[in-house]
Amino acid sequence: MKGKKFVYLFNEGRADMKELLGGKGANLAEMTRIGLPVPHGFTITTEACNLYFQQGRQLSKELEKEIFENLEILERQTGKVFGDKRNPLLVSVRSGAVISMPGMMDTILNLGLNDDTIHGLIEGTNNPRFAWDCYRRFIQMFGEIVMKVHSYQFELILEEVKKDHGYKYDTELTAADLRDIVEMYKRLIRRETKNEFPQEPKEQLLMAIKAVFDSWDNQRARVYRKVHKIPDDLGTAVNIQSMVFGNMGNDSGTGVAFTRNPSTGEKALYGEFLVNAQGEDVVAGIRTPLPIKELEEKMPEIFDEFKKVCKILENHYRDMQDIEFTIEKGKLYLLQTRTGKRTASAAVKIAVEMVREGLISIQEAIMRVEPSQMEQLLHRRIDSGIKTEIIAKGLPASPGAASGKVVFDADEAEKMGQNGEKVILVRTETTPDDIHGIINSQGVLTSRGGMTSHAAVVARGMGKPCVCGCEELKIDMDKEELSTRGLLIKKGDIITIDGSTGNVIMGKVKMLDPDLSPEFQQLLQWADEIRHLGVRANADNPEDAARAREFGAQGIGLCRTEHMFMGPDRLPVVQEMILAETEEERKNALDKILPLQQGDFEGIFRAMEGLPVTIRLLDPPLHEFLPNIEELLVEITELKIRGNDPKKLEQKERLLKKVKNLSEFNPMLGHRGCRLGIVFPEIYEMQARAIFQAAAKLIIEGIEVIPEVMIPLVGHYEELRIMRELVEDTAEKVMKEMKIKIEYKVGTMIEIPRACVTAHEIAQYADFFSFGTNDLTQTTFGFSRDDAEGKFLHHYLSKKILAENPFVTLDQKGVGALIQTAVDLGRGTKPNLKVGICGEHGGDPGSIEFLNKSGLDYVSCSPFRVPIARLASAQAVLKK
Amino acid sequence: MKGKKFVYLFNEGRADMKELLGGKGANLAEMTRIGLPVPHGFTITTEACNLYFQQGRQLSKELEKEIFENLEILERQTGKVFGDKRNPLLVSVRSGAVISMPGMMDTILNLGLNDDTIHGLIEGTNNPRFAWDCYRRFIQMFGEIVMKVHSYQFELILEEVKKDHGYKYDTELTAADLRDIVEMYKRLIRRETKNEFPQEPKEQLLMAIKAVFDSWDNQRARVYRKVHKIPDDLGTAVNIQSMVFGNMGNDSGTGVAFTRNPSTGEKALYGEFLVNAQGEDVVAGIRTPLPIKELEEKMPEIFDEFKKVCKILENHYRDMQDIEFTIEKGKLYLLQTRTGKRTASAAVKIAVEMVREGLISIQEAIMRVEPSQMEQLLHRRIDSGIKTEIIAKGLPASPGAASGKVVFDADEAEKMGQNGEKVILVRTETTPDDIHGIINSQGVLTSRGGMTSHAAVVARGMGKPCVCGCEELKIDMDKEELSTRGLLIKKGDIITIDGSTGNVIMGKVKMLDPDLSPEFQQLLQWADEIRHLGVRANADNPEDAARAREFGAQGIGLCRTEHMFMGPDRLPVVQEMILAETEEERKNALDKILPLQQGDFEGIFRAMEGLPVTIRLLDPPLHEFLPNIEELLVEITELKIRGNDPKKLEQKERLLKKVKNLSEFNPMLGHRGCRLGIVFPEIYEMQARAIFQAAAKLIIEGIEVIPEVMIPLVGHYEELRIMRELVEDTAEKVMKEMKIKIEYKVGTMIEIPRACVTAHEIAQYADFFSFGTNDLTQTTFGFSRDDAEGKFLHHYLSKKILAENPFVTLDQKGVGALIQTAVDLGRGTKPNLKVGICGEHGGDPGSIEFLNKSGLDYVSCSPFRVPIARLASAQAVLKK
Repeated sequence: MKGKKFVYLFNEGRADMKELLGGKGANLAEMTRIGLPVPHGFTITTEACNLYFQQGRQLSKELEKEIFENLEILERQTGKVFGDKRNPLLVSVRSGAVISMPGMMDTILNLGLNDDTIHGLIEGTNNPRFAWDCYRRFIQMFGEIVMKVHSYQFELILEEVKKDHGYKYDTELTAADLRDIVEMYKRLIRRETKNEFPQEPKEQLLMAIKAVFDSWDNQRARVYRKVHKIPDDLGTAVNIQSMVFGNMGNDSGTGVAFTRNPSTGEKALYGEFLVNAQGEDVVAGIRTPLPIKELEEKMPEIFDEFKKVCKILENHYRDMQDIEFTIEKGKLYLLQTRTGKRTASAAVKIAVEMVREGLISIQEAIMRVEPSQMEQLLHRRIDSGIKTEIIAKGLPASPGAASGKVVFDADEAEKMGQNGEKVILVRTETTPDDIHGIINSQGVLTSRGGMTSHAAVVARGMGKPCVCGCEELKIDMDKEELSTRGLLIKKGDIITIDGSTGNVIMGKVKMLDPDLSPEFQQLLQWADEIRHLGVRANADNPEDAARAREFGAQGIGLCRTEHMFMGPDRLPVVQEMILAETEEERKNALDKILPLQQGDFEGIFRAMEGLPVTIRLLDPPLHEFLPNIEELLVEITELKIRGNDPKKLEQKERLLKKVKNLSEFNPMLGHRGCRLGIVFPEIYEMQARAIFQAAAKLIIEGIEVIPEVMIPLVGHYEELRIMRELVEDTAEKVMKEMKIKIEYKVGTMIEIPRACVTAHEIAQYADFFSFGTNDLTQTTFGFSRDDAEGKFLHHYLSKKILAENPFVTLDQKGVGALIQTAVDLGRGTKPNLKVGICGEHGGDPGSIEFLNKSGLDYVSCSPFRVPIARLASAQAVLKK
Repeated sequence: MKGKKFVYLFNEGRADMKELLGGKGANLAEMTRIGLPVPHGFTITTEACNLYFQQGRQLSKELEKEIFENLEILERQTGKVFGDKRNPLLVSVRSGAVISMPGMMDTILNLGLNDDTIHGLIEGTNNPRFAWDCYRRFIQMFGEIVMKVHSYQFELILEEVKKDHGYKYDTELTAADLRDIVEMYKRLIRRETKNEFPQEPKEQLLMAIKAVFDSWDNQRARVYRKVHKIPDDLGTAVNIQSMVFGNMGNDSGTGVAFTRNPSTGEKALYGEFLVNAQGEDVVAGIRTPLPIKELEEKMPEIFDEFKKVCKILENHYRDMQDIEFTIEKGKLYLLQTRTGKRTASAAVKIAVEMVREGLISIQEAIMRVEPSQMEQLLHRRIDSGIKTEIIAKGLPASPGAASGKVVFDADEAEKMGQNGEKVILVRTETTPDDIHGIINSQGVLTSRGGMTSHAAVVARGMGKPCVCGCEELKIDMDKEELSTRGLLIKKGDIITIDGSTGNVIMGKVKMLDPDLSPEFQQLLQWADEIRHLGVRANADNPEDAARAREFGAQGIGLCRTEHMFMGPDRLPVVQEMILAETEEERKNALDKILPLQQGDFEGIFRAMEGLPVTIRLLDPPLHEFLPNIEELLVEITELKIRGNDPKKLEQKERLLKKVKNLSEFNPMLGHRGCRLGIVFPEIYEMQARAIFQAAAKLIIEGIEVIPEVMIPLVGHYEELRIMRELVEDTAEKVMKEMKIKIEYKVGTMIEIPRACVTAHEIAQYADFFSFGTNDLTQTTFGFSRDDAEGKFLHHYLSKKILAENPFVTLDQKGVGALIQTAVDLGRGTKPNLKVGICGEHGGDPGSIEFLNKSGLDYVSCSPFRVPIARLASAQAVLKK
């Protein structure tokens, strides 16, 4: 290891030496390099840290020598001497890992003070109280961090002295008080550690450096690294920097500023500062900082200089910077610069404007915006600046927020909603009977059910906020009230639900409207030019389709037909169809549904004129359209005991029998999807007819229609072959009847593992594949989403058995492997097979990168996620 | 095509020319070749058939010529002349496909008869009635098969003539009557077809040949081929053979015989014959055939000759033969030989004895026995010779048959069973509360639930017959009666259930005991020497383990621990554990279960001394151990309305809440398997402790114990890593406490698709994999077995969307592909990874062949299927 350089002066390093110097050290070096006013200092490298551990937590003699050599240079640069009585050099010691990590030692200030050098500081500043306070703070920080004396013991001494003198604030302490405290601190350290507080500054320095290194390996840091998959051998750097003081009078000060507004993105300095103060004083909150603008009045020259520095730093780093500065006796010093955090809308505005300023490229602008963060721009959301009273927490089932009066009954919700009142429908769970209530509510709140429960699916489909599975709520349907965390909420009380977080909030909360700024539009337009993946939307009605188109969707990737079955005008007919005893009865019911379905499709085709619309034939098991078995049981038992309505009893018993007959042990794996079409071809035939009649009607009107019929839940090629035949036969008939030619495609959802491993066979009969990754994730993991999210998934996530919820971010190793198999096998049979995804992962940026790599043609997601998918798809190309 | 030979005389062909000559033709040729007395004849090849279709259903002139050339040879061989008035050659025309196929034309006899040659026959036989009857039958067969006149029209004429004369039987018809009928038949043909019945024998012949060819392409044959995947271009051969007559007096006769007893396998001629009769007379059933032995008395020389012929044929074909023969005026003729069908026990006996006789090799013997047929030897079964009254049909859920009194209540079943009465427990479905009733019953019958319903699983585990999902049954629990097919069956009535067929039978039926003959043992011993796959058994208790060992199991591949939780002494404690409100309550309950579990394991380890025992930790969701939600609901509603027991109501409501909390939408994909172990590690810890304490105790006694702990439902390696750690920690503790060393393995069930595609990761923490193909099939197909079998699987099978039930025979393309992936990935990580299967496919011969090829180390199946698996494993090696 001899000859290797372990210490770099700030003027020896650069920004790109982050791995060696840590983030903070590299930026301090970079600022020094480009001539900005940074207090002198040096950085001990991460390699020195690793060596320290290899040598059994020992600083080598060579390293110590190198440190002291650099310390001498620092003395020359500052004109001060470490340990000197008259003109002492004081330094800060800070850790600086490559990736910043909580749990590690942060900062020790004023190192170099001792019983001698304190006098130099007093003389130099002419401020004994300031000097003794510096010394007091230094001993406390050093005692706590380096010598491991509990902080509360220092606090205790401080409090006792204040009590003795009848002080309320620290600021009331005099220089003499502080000198007493210094002595008491030293005694405390002696008593607790059996060691003296070290008076030798070099000893202080080496001990502090070791403490920084040691903190790399403490429990919290280790756990944090494990959780965040940060390698243990990165190590931390240590920054030694000469102290500057912002509290040396009215020509001194300290502050923090962003080069642009991190909240709005506006191009203007944003931040605050305090005259005659140190950073700690800002934190203490005793004095109110001033807006950065006022620095112009107070210190116009400094302000000008700072503005220039900001511009230099922004141009240099080519991004908005978050800067810490100190002014010591009329001189500006920079203590840190880093890329500033910002809100979603600021991120968009800054990225686009920087392109226009010629600062960054379009590609860079696209990579600068975090797609998942953009979701907050696309729904009404709770103003994050407002304090709210959270009264319960459930699953964030459908994003967005809404306030309204609590209503427990769907009929009442409908009535009130239609009267213009804003209501939140609260149920233990919802059923198809509640649809009209959901439609007329601002949002839905349930105490049972997971992310795919009826309430969640319907609400997402409608773009309405929904919090479900909120098990804290005790709902009493009879009394029409709910209790949670000791509160009782009655019908009519106002609550707010936040479907993005799962929070339920007391009262009405201020909301922000979705923000589709011109910059946002511009950024998406750039993304469109870069991305390879098409972006479609999942939409079941003309309104959603229109919204999706507005958001830039290039077609409908999934139009679910079952929600069309659930409207209050249709459900009775659908039930009639299901309960039909004879073929004829069933046929009659289907005949009644046909024109309604046709109308639905006409509306969607019209909204999506000229773009493809993928319609999935009926998917859920039929019992989902029937009344609840438990409610029926209770009703029947009541009727039996009362014995006063034998006719009704008989009718209900007949219904119960049918419902029981259709009920399933595992509906998710039951009689649904194309299994319905195989056993009841007349249902799929009716749907196909509705599609083609709608298409024909619009074509005759001169509207371009591109229907794609999708067969769900295919696991065996025979299923698709038979269903395709049925669709084609129906299309032929309609075309003949209407004397018109319709171009259409027939494809399948790939959503069960068997379809993936036999995709070469299935592709023979498919014009397209669309991955239904919700169900594919369920079957690949053997997880029922509703049950998993209610029962054990949180456990898996908190124990890190799974790094991410696989229903949110695609599981690449498992589900992804099957997707890749299906794409490869399918394209092996049909090289031009069109392949997309219509599961919820289609709108998840983390998943989109994988899907782009897998060679998919398009993703489809909820309308509100279309912009996110457009951006993420472009990023996927740039990352590749 | 010129120069190609399309017609082979019997003395030109051989047995191995089956593809060209069809099965029947090849065997006739072979018999001729080895000098056996076969009436002369020739075969028109299958290639001629294919050419016939290629030429638009035309017989080429060349073919006709070749046929007539061979006919001339036949005339010379027989000394008769085709169409000759005095000494006419009569022939039979029969189809003869390579694979015999129903729906094809079978046989025309007596071809060559016409208004002239009839006189030659009369003179030759001196029997006008016989001759006219021959002619009458010929016209009828020809008219029906070749000229397509409906058979009922011929029957009508026959019936009318009999009515006119007041006859009851055909035999009463005189020669004159028959001559009249001949004329009426000819008129019928003329009227119906506008064509004369052809008088020219050569024309008759060509027409008959064309009819055989045409029948290859008729609707029924085409459908049959499609279903059985027989290629359409195999074609059929046509056999033309000179007629011999067994009805020419008391020195004539006809019969059918097997060279060994096809029922028992005994080495003795078996069959029957009729003197002075033709085959048809046997079919008509007017005269009772005599046992073949009596031929010895009636025609001793013929009998001797026949015995010799049988021996020659058996030696020649090296298998038991099924022979048709005719004796014409003291001369024996063979008309057909083929390999005889036989019962399972005969198959075993014949195969083993033929090895001992030096006739076949051990390998051949093993291939001669159909493993799936052997199942009938391993359970008590209904004597197939007995006529039974089937009153309902359900799912064959657990093989074997049982008779007993119908009982509707588990407590009553227990009481009666313990009093020595034989009862069948009848329930809509069973729950853990019924276990004591099932234990004390002969078998279980349910009206709901599929092959994996509680009743089915428990019954299979106990080796008790079970018919479930018998939806025809209307069970009235209150009245304690059931109705089916118009019958009413009350408590105490005797029924029989056949769990191998799903039949429910009225009354008591005679049963046969399982047959483990010495020959069977010998055959299995031979199989053991050949097979590569180990064979283990799935057994949950010492009795089953002992039986499995008796049947040759080399270990337990799956010991389910949940059935141990269901005993009536345990269930209350298990419920206590599940319903525990505090950690302490749960711990207390587990402490009570521990010694019981330990006792279970001691019993099994003892029974399997020296052999490995794979114990699966708890798998089913906890709610399976709790009362039924619907029953609770009814109870609560009753209590509410009656309002007379508020305390009980409150208690029941609390219970309902807990049950609802634990209930799941899709239990199959819910909180079960290792997901229980992750969330409630104390349960798995208790089980591990029970296993190791049991092992330690026996080891101290000097008994060799080889425990293998199996973690169910692993989908992610982290699950296995954590559970393995828990098992290892527990083992360490027990070994320390008991001061003993225990050798054990820890592995996992591979039963969800994600485990297959990430097997390389999982293998890091597994000593073994065991495929749980039941669940793997469910997740790969996205089928819930219970729902699929109840709702749509029959549809899929009858429509041939699936060729086989994937829960019975492994789906090689889908599930098999995932298995192969898992084996390859797992062995990639650990080349010596032990891999087995414990799903029900482990006992299915069709699946075993695939599993052998996939490189598995062992299969595990129910004890009764162990012999089947041993045999099938040997066959798999021989087939490979």
